[in-house]
Amino acid sequence: MREGILVINAGSSSIKFSLYVSNGDDSPLLSSKGQVEGINVAPHFIAKSPDGAVLAEDRWPDEPGLSHEALFKHMIGWIESHLDGAELKVAGHRVVHGGSQYSHPMLINDDLMVELEQLVPLAPLHQPHNLAPIRALAKVHPGLPQVACFDTAFHRSNPWVSQTFALPRALTGEGVKRYGFHGLSYEYISRRLAKLAPAQARGRVAVAHLGSGASMCAIKGGKSVASTMGFTALDGLPMGTRTGTLDAGVVLYLLQQKGMTAKEIETLLYKQSGLLGVSGLNNDMRVLLESSEPHAAEAVELFTYRIARELGSLAAAMGGLDALVFTAGIGEHSPPVRARVCHLSEWLGIRLDEAANADGDAELISALDSKVAVWVIPTDEEMMIAEHTREVLWSLRD
Amino acid sequence: MREGILVINAGSSSIKFSLYVSNGDDSPLLSSKGQVEGINVAPHFIAKSPDGAVLAEDRWPDEPGLSHEALFKHMIGWIESHLDGAELKVAGHRVVHGGSQYSHPMLINDDLMVELEQLVPLAPLHQPHNLAPIRALAKVHPGLPQVACFDTAFHRSNPWVSQTFALPRALTGEGVKRYGFHGLSYEYISRRLAKLAPAQARGRVAVAHLGSGASMCAIKGGKSVASTMGFTALDGLPMGTRTGTLDAGVVLYLLQQKGMTAKEIETLLYKQSGLLGVSGLNNDMRVLLESSEPHAAEAVELFTYRIARELGSLAAAMGGLDALVFTAGIGEHSPPVRARVCHLSEWLGIRLDEAANADGDAELISALDSKVAVWVIPTDEEMMIAEHTREVLWSLRD
Repeated sequence: MREGILVINAGSSSIKFSLYVSNGDDSPLLSSKGQVEGINVAPHFIAKSPDGAVLAEDRWPDEPGLSHEALFKHMIGWIESHLDGAELKVAGHRVVHGGSQYSHPMLINDDLMVELEQLVPLAPLHQPHNLAPIRALAKVHPGLPQVACFDTAFHRSNPWVSQTFALPRALTGEGVKRYGFHGLSYEYISRRLAKLAPAQARGRVAVAHLGSGASMCAIKGGKSVASTMGFTALDGLPMGTRTGTLDAGVVLYLLQQKGMTAKEIETLLYKQSGLLGVSGLNNDMRVLLESSEPHAAEAVELFTYRIARELGSLAAAMGGLDALVFTAGIGEHSPPVRARVCHLSEWLGIRLDEAANADGDAELISALDSKVAVWVIPTDEEMMIAEHTREVLWSLRD
Repeated sequence: MREGILVINAGSSSIKFSLYVSNGDDSPLLSSKGQVEGINVAPHFIAKSPDGAVLAEDRWPDEPGLSHEALFKHMIGWIESHLDGAELKVAGHRVVHGGSQYSHPMLINDDLMVELEQLVPLAPLHQPHNLAPIRALAKVHPGLPQVACFDTAFHRSNPWVSQTFALPRALTGEGVKRYGFHGLSYEYISRRLAKLAPAQARGRVAVAHLGSGASMCAIKGGKSVASTMGFTALDGLPMGTRTGTLDAGVVLYLLQQKGMTAKEIETLLYKQSGLLGVSGLNNDMRVLLESSEPHAAEAVELFTYRIARELGSLAAAMGGLDALVFTAGIGEHSPPVRARVCHLSEWLGIRLDEAANADGDAELISALDSKVAVWVIPTDEEMMIAEHTREVLWSLRD
């Protein structure tokens, strides 16, 4: 019997799915994927085959009020009628926050849902949207095992100094600490590198996950020891519209001297900063790289400078550097960004193979004499969730 | 004629002075120093000779209401009657904020005072106290030249990427950027190192100014290219009671989820965090190092870890590291802190000479085979102000 593994990644304005089919010990095979997007505006459902052919498409341009739940049910309906001969056995969800407790994926039950609800104040913009489809799916499929895969889990191996702000202990104790995110991506990359270059994967590896959200992770001996994101996904590198690391004194200035509200500051720091704020043009790295505007070039310059600075800091967390991996949208597809970061980081022993870097298909882009191997490895958070989910399912049978 | 140079360093609860006498081309010579402290509580004036002998002492235990100005006048009165045969020719003031404009000390006039007043919103806790004694002294000595020496000035050589947050350009344009502080200390250290080891001083030097306020600076070819403090003196390293670098998302959490006011958050981050907050015991490194409490050891551990992480980041800003200098209270007097930082930083080629580090008088504490020279150099911000002030005075005569 072929087993269907449904992966759900839900946000505030979209719900993405990937359906995998597993025969046995091999990696799960992608069968179809799709999403509802434009929720609350003009909902739009699309499903595609692994090669990108459109399998289904629905639009509700005049029904912006359609609920997450109604749209999710529509999606589930389509999935169940397109299981490709498999039986739906389990669903895995990306859940942004697993708190201090969860360093592994967890089978979902009522108690866990209560705990995950309690983490909403730590990620109010994301956690509720991650949890809603779990409840919706439980209504439709009461017996289906569901698994929560946390974006924070991979970083729970960080030493406490790396997780702790210099705040009063009571605040740290109630959870104001560095969690780190993008953990499913880092774990996927770490497993991939272990196949491509096992010796390096056992060493000191920095991974730059550069998408519209961007962070970096220091992985030593296969375990995360530090990351640039902190208590929230606002910290660390500049991103498409997020500021990244900011002097907390700036927030106090905006409150006390400029009279801004918390909500206004949140919008400023999450939605109007980063590449968009610095360029004044766009939050998309592709647009900035093609632009002749000086401010666009400055945004790229600041982005790469900050990556290089964080790379030094992460090397310090590991006591050196053996490999650097670029991944996610910008990391996989922007050779000029990779080149600039590598040139700024030559002091670490990095030597870029310029031709390999320019070649869209090369995985290893460092020169032969580079002391640090530099890789481009496409990430696949959905595959990581599918693998975790299958592992949890199997553990139930033991 | 011996020339008297008065140096004033005024804060919210204290006003410090140092009186220097200069004969000519040699460095100014300290003649006396002292302070009024306990302002608004129980004012107390003390003046000492350079060797620490008490020259004068006054207490007003029952007059907490005595104004800064009244106490400052008392101090000036004592100084003028103890000029040691010199004539008071000029006064130099530590002014925390010189904004984006001032990369050098400035002769004070009415226009400059207006500009420095306009910077008060950038440093509301410090700038007003720095400016008050300038006005008070002008009343008593209308003709005396006065010089403003800025804690931000030395960092104006930072490249723009190092000074810029990934915020919208309008905010950056109105001054929300990284200024850096402790500049007078870094400039002093940089000049001292140029005498001790000229080749190193022309290279890539990281200075760790570790006092109750703590920061680090990357100095390349004698110019500051990056520092850990940002828009305010809250950013960067953990300090005695300040948190240092913090995810801005934590401030939003404290506002939105915990309902704290801006003032309460300011108090939390400036007064209750750092070594005090993490240890739950004390803000004084000496006390923590002598304590057997695990939390005290954790505070020291977090402090040194964060220094090591920032050292990696600053090395990235310079493209490597030739020398590391420890200075200020903790940097000059806490061998265990220096040892821990150096051990965490061995990946940079640092090898500590343990005996030299333990020896209170050694300046060079790295081993012979260390690729990075490690120094302990006492800082002297007052001497830096005196030298700057004398230079400005002399330029008036040219």
